[in-house]
Amino acid sequence: MTVDTADLALTPATLADPLPLARALIRRASVTPRDAGALDVLQAALESLGFRCTRLPFGEGEARVDNLYARLGDEGPNFCFAGHTDVVPVGEGWTVDPFGAEVIDGRLFGRGAADMKGAIAAFVAAVARLLAERDPRGSISLLITGDEEGDAVNGTVKVLEWLAEQGETLDHCLVGEPTNPARLGDMMKIGRRGSLNARLTVYGAQGHVAYPHLADNPIPRLMRMLGALIERPLDAGTEHFQPSNLEIVTIDVGNTASNVIPGAAHARFNIRFNDLHSGERLTSWIRERLEVAADGGLFDLDVRVSGDAFLTPPGPLSALVSDACEAVLGHRPELSTSGGTSDARFIKNACPVVEFGLVGRTMHKTDEHVELADLAALADIYHRVLAAYPATAG
Amino acid sequence: MTVDTADLALTPATLADPLPLARALIRRASVTPRDAGALDVLQAALESLGFRCTRLPFGEGEARVDNLYARLGDEGPNFCFAGHTDVVPVGEGWTVDPFGAEVIDGRLFGRGAADMKGAIAAFVAAVARLLAERDPRGSISLLITGDEEGDAVNGTVKVLEWLAEQGETLDHCLVGEPTNPARLGDMMKIGRRGSLNARLTVYGAQGHVAYPHLADNPIPRLMRMLGALIERPLDAGTEHFQPSNLEIVTIDVGNTASNVIPGAAHARFNIRFNDLHSGERLTSWIRERLEVAADGGLFDLDVRVSGDAFLTPPGPLSALVSDACEAVLGHRPELSTSGGTSDARFIKNACPVVEFGLVGRTMHKTDEHVELADLAALADIYHRVLAAYPATAG
Repeated sequence: MTVDTADLALTPATLADPLPLARALIRRASVTPRDAGALDVLQAALESLGFRCTRLPFGEGEARVDNLYARLGDEGPNFCFAGHTDVVPVGEGWTVDPFGAEVIDGRLFGRGAADMKGAIAAFVAAVARLLAERDPRGSISLLITGDEEGDAVNGTVKVLEWLAEQGETLDHCLVGEPTNPARLGDMMKIGRRGSLNARLTVYGAQGHVAYPHLADNPIPRLMRMLGALIERPLDAGTEHFQPSNLEIVTIDVGNTASNVIPGAAHARFNIRFNDLHSGERLTSWIRERLEVAADGGLFDLDVRVSGDAFLTPPGPLSALVSDACEAVLGHRPELSTSGGTSDARFIKNACPVVEFGLVGRTMHKTDEHVELADLAALADIYHRVLAAYPATAG
Repeated sequence: MTVDTADLALTPATLADPLPLARALIRRASVTPRDAGALDVLQAALESLGFRCTRLPFGEGEARVDNLYARLGDEGPNFCFAGHTDVVPVGEGWTVDPFGAEVIDGRLFGRGAADMKGAIAAFVAAVARLLAERDPRGSISLLITGDEEGDAVNGTVKVLEWLAEQGETLDHCLVGEPTNPARLGDMMKIGRRGSLNARLTVYGAQGHVAYPHLADNPIPRLMRMLGALIERPLDAGTEHFQPSNLEIVTIDVGNTASNVIPGAAHARFNIRFNDLHSGERLTSWIRERLEVAADGGLFDLDVRVSGDAFLTPPGPLSALVSDACEAVLGHRPELSTSGGTSDARFIKNACPVVEFGLVGRTMHKTDEHVELADLAALADIYHRVLAAYPATAG
């Protein structure tokens, strides 16, 4: 491996500050599914700290994605930091170079600064600081994918399969997603809602609007069918989850003639659901409701469950992170299950997992940035987590 | 005027047979708004019978359309045959030349054979036969437009305005549209439903499906608003009209992202309405219903009334045509107001009007054709109408 780390001095002292590594990572334009050298930079930093690194490329051709598993130590328990080096596309309207990693007025700018190269640098800084104090108890590992913002097919899912094949165990995991809406330490994610996408096509019979008895308009039936899905809330929420929610995201008929009754109508909807449901049971419920409302009318339904709801109930792991957060920031984060999905939905099958990272306000937007103070504080928090582990967790 | 009538012998005897003129008209590829010489052919035929012809081109540039008004006689009452020489586009899949006017197995094929060059030839044949018997009583006129299948802006509407300016009166009118669904003499149209087209855009606020409280999905509101329009039938029909009917012809959102709540949703609908309604009152009703259902939500509504319902109540004119039909075919046509619109919706403001023509089964389709027997019978029927007028209609 030839790594260009000219912009990064690989010493424990340098790595104990998350900023240089964060800047080096941002400068690698790893717009998903490209890697652009980002994992090489990270691997070189981890190896300089003594990690054993394994690169895990999965997929073929355009879909080929590189991943990295790194472990320091042989004993259990194994505390895993998880995250991704890929970033979403830049978009237009930036006032700075999206891959320049510029520091302006105490802020680090660049695509991935918040989501989540900054947090990866904080992972490494926390380890460097711990190593400066003592040999770690148990093991510390990093599970880093280049396929979180993309299809999430050749990333964390396959790394976890590989780990299982190797007999490699993760005992607790912290995902470094930018969980804080506005202020560092506001929010930790202890689970996520499930997500389901459905495509519905309702068939009728085309005809002329002047002769409706010779046609069968599918649109009123589609409206009735969709209405049957949204007429009542799915639930009222649970202790740790918001109410489940169904959104009709589009209806499209594409009929350009005002005197023609169309022959088919199409809709798509998404459900974000809590732990009162499973994707499988919801799929059955959707089909049953639609069949009743269709009243014999023909329709096609295609449902894809992208993840079930999951929860790591408040316990030792969330307490470990909350304690560290309180020690550094003076307040404890809200334990939440709101918002979108992350790779935690896969890791929850392997071990207890929580998510805690930077402030996500500018993630996926123009001029993405993080406060340098937040970056430093996050490294502090991660360091305290490692320092207290495994005595307090597990 | 230089007219190529090489394919048509302009003698009263030739014109008493509708077939030669029908073939000559079909051979002029007058796909709306093109004329392709069709009106020249017709004018030459009418002038050979003694009609005074006035060409009435209206509109500018691409929209310029030619029209013809022809009158035989100076006295009242003035019986008018109305129709159009323009035809709809050919489309694909013909097994014969659409403008070849071929006669195969007793059928005349070609675009416009049924709708409605055949009927125009039957108008002329009826006059030629009458003239062979005696001088007509009153006057006979033809009002022929080249803008019925198109925008209907520079055609019959403007010819009627011109007639009014000239002090020219129509006393009764027969439109030669192909009114018979399957068999000649099945159906006469004594009115038509009104027609209204509406475009509705409902606005919301775009957002991410995972954060529905930060967005406002316009689709359920659109469904509720459209539902308010179709929840009850508009009426149960009247003595001469079918129930009014609303068809939602399209809904389009065009959102390709399954995780995005869209910001706007669009729909279009058409109402065919009977004489219990007016376009103006329906427009008010639509707006009121939508405003209640929108419950404060923003929307745009654009309503275009293309014609109000109209009726020539059964009376002397319809009896005149029914009698002629019965004399030739042995049965009386159903008096109907079903189906689409025609230029009769404009003529009804000038005088009583009915529509009776050929069999429309193949109109606007591939291999449009009429039975030669029907063409001959229609000329007979029109001749009997003229022969009995004005003694019976008045």
